[in-house]
Amino acid sequence: MRTTLLLGFLLAAPVALRAADPAAEIRTVLSAQAAAWNRGDVDGFMQAYVHTETLRFASGGTVTRGWQTTLDRYKKRYPDRAAMGTLQYTLIDVDILAPDAAVVFGQWELARERDRPRGLFTLVMRRTADGWRIAADHTSSAEQ
Amino acid sequence: MRTTLLLGFLLAAPVALRAADPAAEIRTVLSAQAAAWNRGDVDGFMQAYVHTETLRFASGGTVTRGWQTTLDRYKKRYPDRAAMGTLQYTLIDVDILAPDAAVVFGQWELARERDRPRGLFTLVMRRTADGWRIAADHTSSAEQ
Repeated sequence: MRTTLLLGFLLAAPVALRAADPAAEIRTVLSAQAAAWNRGDVDGFMQAYVHTETLRFASGGTVTRGWQTTLDRYKKRYPDRAAMGTLQYTLIDVDILAPDAAVVFGQWELARERDRPRGLFTLVMRRTADGWRIAADHTSSAEQ
Repeated sequence: MRTTLLLGFLLAAPVALRAADPAAEIRTVLSAQAAAWNRGDVDGFMQAYVHTETLRFASGGTVTRGWQTTLDRYKKRYPDRAAMGTLQYTLIDVDILAPDAAVVFGQWELARERDRPRGLFTLVMRRTADGWRIAADHTSSAEQ
């Protein structure tokens, strides 16, 4: 009996710890997002975004609204594995502003055969029923 | 006596209303910021930012940290009235995330004699003892 309880505690503990640390949860969502990209899974990558019409994706001078439109933009812009390259997020800074809201700031870099575009991103993340999701993404590119 | 009370109420009311509407307060801070820019007052423009070393100013692929460094960057990049042009913020979207935190998203445009650069901005704003201030600014430019 005592062994079962202890085992139950050990199994439950990581979940409880994760739930208590929103910054760690957010980092996990973003790691999974980059991993999806790096196996060529754009749909998996898109799971990190809120699946709503209100999703805002801003890049350069252009604003895209809605999950589907954002997915279409990614698929058009990165049509194959060569264009997708290998994505890496670095210097990620997570700022928890409320129990259900956070801002994430970081640097992105794509390693591709012919170039290595990089830049910065600011994400507004909200805690949803499915976990932390990106509600707004502002991305900028360094000049090449 | 009644007149005095009524007058007191009328004078106090706008302040009370403003205090109850953080989005309106934030819009006022940003309007004052653009107005300062448009009279060539970069120091006045900088009053909208938190006066700390933690201020983060991100543009393209570059991150600037700290109020003074950000001021220096602006003064170097916009050395005179011709370079400063006339700044306009449009399509401003204010999302209050907590009593002391908000995200502002919008479009900026500089009308200058020779060009009209424009782009997008995402601001993380915090309510400080001095009122709402920009704690982080991510700006991107549309391709010219």
